[in-house]
Amino acid sequence: MSHSLLNLQVRLKVRPVGVPTAEHFELVREPIAEPGPGQVTVQILFVSVDPAMRGWVNAAANYAEPVPIGGVMKSFAVGRITESRHPRWRAGDLVTGLFGWQQWAVIDASVIDRRLDPSIIGDLPVSYSLGVLGLNGVTAYFGLFEVAQPKPGQTVVVSSGAGSVGSCVGQLAKIAGCRTVAISGGPEKTRLAADLFGFDASLDYRSPDFVARLEQACPKGVDVYFDNTSGSITDAVIARLNVRARVVICGTVAYTDWSPPPLGPRMERQLLVTRARVEGFIAPDFQHRWGEAYSILAQWIREGRIKVLEDVLDGLETAPGSIEGLYRGDNMGKRVISVTSEHRKDH
Amino acid sequence: MSHSLLNLQVRLKVRPVGVPTAEHFELVREPIAEPGPGQVTVQILFVSVDPAMRGWVNAAANYAEPVPIGGVMKSFAVGRITESRHPRWRAGDLVTGLFGWQQWAVIDASVIDRRLDPSIIGDLPVSYSLGVLGLNGVTAYFGLFEVAQPKPGQTVVVSSGAGSVGSCVGQLAKIAGCRTVAISGGPEKTRLAADLFGFDASLDYRSPDFVARLEQACPKGVDVYFDNTSGSITDAVIARLNVRARVVICGTVAYTDWSPPPLGPRMERQLLVTRARVEGFIAPDFQHRWGEAYSILAQWIREGRIKVLEDVLDGLETAPGSIEGLYRGDNMGKRVISVTSEHRKDH
Repeated sequence: MSHSLLNLQVRLKVRPVGVPTAEHFELVREPIAEPGPGQVTVQILFVSVDPAMRGWVNAAANYAEPVPIGGVMKSFAVGRITESRHPRWRAGDLVTGLFGWQQWAVIDASVIDRRLDPSIIGDLPVSYSLGVLGLNGVTAYFGLFEVAQPKPGQTVVVSSGAGSVGSCVGQLAKIAGCRTVAISGGPEKTRLAADLFGFDASLDYRSPDFVARLEQACPKGVDVYFDNTSGSITDAVIARLNVRARVVICGTVAYTDWSPPPLGPRMERQLLVTRARVEGFIAPDFQHRWGEAYSILAQWIREGRIKVLEDVLDGLETAPGSIEGLYRGDNMGKRVISVTSEHRKDH
Repeated sequence: MSHSLLNLQVRLKVRPVGVPTAEHFELVREPIAEPGPGQVTVQILFVSVDPAMRGWVNAAANYAEPVPIGGVMKSFAVGRITESRHPRWRAGDLVTGLFGWQQWAVIDASVIDRRLDPSIIGDLPVSYSLGVLGLNGVTAYFGLFEVAQPKPGQTVVVSSGAGSVGSCVGQLAKIAGCRTVAISGGPEKTRLAADLFGFDASLDYRSPDFVARLEQACPKGVDVYFDNTSGSITDAVIARLNVRARVVICGTVAYTDWSPPPLGPRMERQLLVTRARVEGFIAPDFQHRWGEAYSILAQWIREGRIKVLEDVLDGLETAPGSIEGLYRGDNMGKRVISVTSEHRKDH
């Protein structure tokens, strides 16, 4: 490896209010540092683009400290170790972690989340480790099976049903013997949810008769609602909950600003009458069991029971505008950015 | 028993929208019927006045069919069987059930909920079977211990903390080793929650600095919120939930009309960030275990660990205006109506 290469980075230039757009970032090239003791150098292959990244740059209190101004944008990434000064890791290892939007990461080994298990990733695209065999997959798996706990024959409704989490939730619910209903925005995603991801019913929340169609699509009511959006979609579904229904709050992309929280119809009475449960969920609470989910998900992908769609952007130059595109719903499938030209040829 | 007595009944005259008031009912006297085969005659001692009765007379869909116009007002009651034509029941048995707002009930034996167990009720007031040794007690017991599952040292906030359910919840949470915070309306109830029911902190939601006081009363945040009200009280508590907090939705008296639901701040984001759970709860879902709760509650009452306060109205003539009074917050303690002059002397 030649360290005369420059490392292309995407840094936070201005702190956004709400959704970050291209103007909040800047592209910078700088020499690649040498790894110190306990560090590794990772050549990044793919970085992830996720709705949660909005929260990572906003000033509002969230899960963690926000990315500092001038800092490399935080993001999930997968890459190959090119040089290691830590005994646990070796050049050639494929690893994931919060390596950021950059071509090269020189990091303490503790920043690495995991080494990709060759028996799991096998010949599947390495980028799946950022989606269905990464956080999206374990979010779908544990949110559905552990929090929502659907029973065969029950009706499972998923908002953002064509999205990277929602499409997996729908397919897992189908495997569990449920009736599955996707809600998406626009005719393309609605078709995608039905045709590729196999939802039993697929609804466009922008259609003027959405509520009537939801009613038709759930003739026995709603037993599980996997919510990636909040907003008017959620209001329509909550009104149709069955007794002892489970609502998993997994995402809130319908609103970009939650301070103060937007107003909506209160759900307390409906929860009381139905004795339904609404529960917030993030996958890291099940981190000790992620390996179990990766094995099962990889098996179902190979068996063709879980279809995967990726939206691969080409090069870090596309990164600054990639988050706002997610919130506009531009992407079809899990959005990742291919970082190395080397890898772009392979993919 | 002389059947030449007239039976005083309170019947529904006009279907109310929202909270029923005195003008929606009428007092009627009619001869007492003879019990047919499989029936019993019950001389009613006390009838109950509960917030849920609003829902029993409104047209909106609820747990059950509404009371018909001209029908005796549905209510929980306790009385003594004076005549039985069913082999399971005997004259002298003290029984509870939905006997209605009347002095005498001639009913199918299937209408009886239970015979009061002398080893439980003992020398405690028979009216307790409509409150702390009835639905209020099992609501507090199972809502807190089974749904909310507080741990010692956690903070439990209760809205309507001086009410018949809330006061029991607070005392049970104290027995479970929790820090307890009552929220009530007005200085009298606030004092009652602190002085009689032993809450560690007692707040008046009508005070202008309520939110600041709530913050002070919950220095470690809120682990359990037992919600009897909904509304702005709930909004203030939800904003202070800890990670993995549990919210039990048990009542919604802050609003009298839920069609359509009133607007409030959406809670989805807060639930996601805290991974908190909000669950509707009604005690009948645990009916198979009520006996267990009655025994423990009666023991704790006798030991002085649970204090009970009743608001006893005198005679069915007070019944028509008794529900609106609940919603105004007139009552201090569980509201019941003493029905028989015979019993009024005893009590």
